Amino acid sequence: MSGRVLVVDDVATNRLLLRAKLSSAYYDVVVAEDGPKALDLARSEQPDMVMLDVMMPGMDGFAVCARLKADPETAHIPVIMVTALDTAEERIRGLEAGADDFLSKPFNDLALFARVRSLMRMKMMFDELRLRDLTSRELGLAEVMPDQDIEAEPSGPILIAPPDAGRGGQLAAELGARLSIGTIVTSSEREALNLSRLELPDCFIVHQTLMEGGDGLRLVSALRARPETRQSAVILVVENGDVGTAAKGLDLGASDYIEAPFDVNELIARIRSQLRRKRYSDRLRSNVRNGLKLAVIDPLTGIYNRRYASQHMIRVMERARETGGVFAVMMIDLDKFKSINDRFGHDAGDAVLREFSRRLQENIRGVDLVARFGGEEFFVAMPDVDAGAAGHAAERIRRAIEDAPVRLPGGAGEVDVTVSIGVAVAGAGDGDAEAIIKRADSALYLSKEGGRNRVSFFARAA
Amino acid sequence: MSGRVLVVDDVATNRLLLRAKLSSAYYDVVVAEDGPKALDLARSEQPDMVMLDVMMPGMDGFAVCARLKADPETAHIPVIMVTALDTAEERIRGLEAGADDFLSKPFNDLALFARVRSLMRMKMMFDELRLRDLTSRELGLAEVMPDQDIEAEPSGPILIAPPDAGRGGQLAAELGARLSIGTIVTSSEREALNLSRLELPDCFIVHQTLMEGGDGLRLVSALRARPETRQSAVILVVENGDVGTAAKGLDLGASDYIEAPFDVNELIARIRSQLRRKRYSDRLRSNVRNGLKLAVIDPLTGIYNRRYASQHMIRVMERARETGGVFAVMMIDLDKFKSINDRFGHDAGDAVLREFSRRLQENIRGVDLVARFGGEEFFVAMPDVDAGAAGHAAERIRRAIEDAPVRLPGGAGEVDVTVSIGVAVAGAGDGDAEAIIKRADSALYLSKEGGRNRVSFFARAA
Repeated sequence: MSGRVLVVDDVATNRLLLRAKLSSAYYDVVVAEDGPKALDLARSEQPDMVMLDVMMPGMDGFAVCARLKADPETAHIPVIMVTALDTAEERIRGLEAGADDFLSKPFNDLALFARVRSLMRMKMMFDELRLRDLTSRELGLAEVMPDQDIEAEPSGPILIAPPDAGRGGQLAAELGARLSIGTIVTSSEREALNLSRLELPDCFIVHQTLMEGGDGLRLVSALRARPETRQSAVILVVENGDVGTAAKGLDLGASDYIEAPFDVNELIARIRSQLRRKRYSDRLRSNVRNGLKLAVIDPLTGIYNRRYASQHMIRVMERARETGGVFAVMMIDLDKFKSINDRFGHDAGDAVLREFSRRLQENIRGVDLVARFGGEEFFVAMPDVDAGAAGHAAERIRRAIEDAPVRLPGGAGEVDVTVSIGVAVAGAGDGDAEAIIKRADSALYLSKEGGRNRVSFFARAA
Repeated sequence: MSGRVLVVDDVATNRLLLRAKLSSAYYDVVVAEDGPKALDLARSEQPDMVMLDVMMPGMDGFAVCARLKADPETAHIPVIMVTALDTAEERIRGLEAGADDFLSKPFNDLALFARVRSLMRMKMMFDELRLRDLTSRELGLAEVMPDQDIEAEPSGPILIAPPDAGRGGQLAAELGARLSIGTIVTSSEREALNLSRLELPDCFIVHQTLMEGGDGLRLVSALRARPETRQSAVILVVENGDVGTAAKGLDLGASDYIEAPFDVNELIARIRSQLRRKRYSDRLRSNVRNGLKLAVIDPLTGIYNRRYASQHMIRVMERARETGGVFAVMMIDLDKFKSINDRFGHDAGDAVLREFSRRLQENIRGVDLVARFGGEEFFVAMPDVDAGAAGHAAERIRRAIEDAPVRLPGGAGEVDVTVSIGVAVAGAGDGDAEAIIKRADSALYLSKEGGRNRVSFFARAA
């Protein structure tokens, strides 16, 4: 997958070299000679990746990286820091500034392109997710959460697949203490996969050589092939200088790699960076899911709305067709609700609607669905229920609201509330959902006409 | 990126060979020896890809492919057909059965892995999209559209980047006639990219060597680097047997390739297959977008709901803070709406609500927002408006509904309708949105008390 790379370096020959390398692999290259220009170009050109020299006069690479990651317009763009000196301290400083990876000059082409490919792939996936999230945001359906909140979220355990039990135990102890996080040490590929089913790790630390002759790359591959672990962070530990294995690992889907022996502080910085990335993508996914859910929830009572109930009825009726059984629907109306609003105000009316929703939910089965159709009108769908059982349920609901007054907010006392209910029982072949709901509505009308606070049935023609 | 591959072949040595090749590249391999077993495993194992032998006793590869693509549980899994004879007719038949690509035995490893990587990448992207779509479906927010509808949808043009003008013109003529689709022939990479800005092609046919010394791979790469063309289909045309270029093209993001000289029927079958794939992903994207929109739309009137209006108010107030200006909000209530429902029924009431929404929208500016808060209660937010202008607008709205009766559905005649309106004008520092809406609500109460069909103001303390 190709994409646009912003190369930032104060030395012209370095810019030319990287531009030539990346262009030959068909990447689109934009260059900047200092930090301020880089920040401008990152905003205007929206590159898919930034390759950032650390040592620059004026604003250095760490400062540029921190600024890129603090700006919502550029925070999602992966940053590779390019260094001449390559020390763990420097890498930790870069990770803390938000860098996604490091490359040291002179470049090893294999390492360079494996890393660029891996970050491009990640960027494309994020772009896909961000697009959805942007829609939710525009519509006001998503919450914007600051980075600190993402850091603070509770985390699943870290699973360590070490080359031997000793190293595994030591690493588990260090990580557990330093990150205040649960750790699991496994002795084989199979065990790693099985344990992940029981408790899903947020992050895997996988050595290239595992105990019992296991292969770390094979484990990385298996983790990526399974839907449940596809989104987890995977950090591959390779022997010092084994760039070939590192590159292969990235191509197989590892999120990052580190060379052993390593400074545990660097590993911790890398884990933190990966967990941040994972939580950001989890957040994007759940924002969309939550936004979608809002489309079918009544905001006042928190129960489903008419739109969802209509879809649900299709499923209830399909089931009746398959089983040949019957089902019941109820239309429920709060009696003289308008006078509650008029006497006590809208807040009191809202409180009554919420309290009735609550009692309604307490008096139905788990398989039944309650919805608010609007105003003071509620709906219940009950699969696999005949007229007798539906009548009992309706009577229970009627009494649940009649038996105890509703307490009004702000110390405004209590109010007695009653409901009128209409019930229709139907089976396959009794018409479409709309027709069946209309019958329950007619029965409700009978209850109203008959003096309210009662249950009426629409007699089933059969 | 690794993943799970289902290998289907009736010959044991072929299965072993492919399993060994794919396992060595760390793919997870499942095997089946005939069609029925393959269909079962595709459902139960949910592989990321199927490699399917064409010549099998009993159910042949074409039949298996067609069955996989007809089953909603497996239709999204890419299928590579594996053939011994490699003819255009066979490939066309495979494409028509829904195959995503072909490989001929004996395998060229370069071609095999480039193709597998490309399809895996596509599959991961689709999985991400399908996950979102599945949520919308479960919530009843997405429509399921049959394949025929996807075929029938109107299409953007096809852009051809040929090796010379003659071949370009000829191909344009053939494709235009056969596919009833617009075609554009370009003479350079730059022109191709510029033309795509004017009218976005659904599909690009890019030769490996372009006119004016252009490089097809570079164009593929540039198309993939730009957000606007990232989702378009790109078919690369390579010289006969140039597997290296084909593999590179797929890695750069080409959707498919074909070797020249080619049978134009095969190209057409490949274009059709790519357009189908593109429309499917477009559909998944728009389903989620539409689902999200439903969360903020009032189903009866099609205008925004209270949830959206609350979010919108935050933006209106931010703007007022920035400019130091004022804005107005209105609360509008249909007078004696309950009696319309009682006299003419709910359908008539709904018709009145819809007609009022329509007239309301006709009498506000483009920058104003109207929303239905529930029942017969509407809301308008008007940025950059003072008390005088807001009063004029409110009066215009009041008259718009008073001046002409509302026609009722089903020939039930007409009904006169009036509205009461409360207006509050506010600026930065006048409290939060909730407080300002409450003031409009108090003004609305004054209008009601004063005899209805009138506009009242909440006097701004300033």
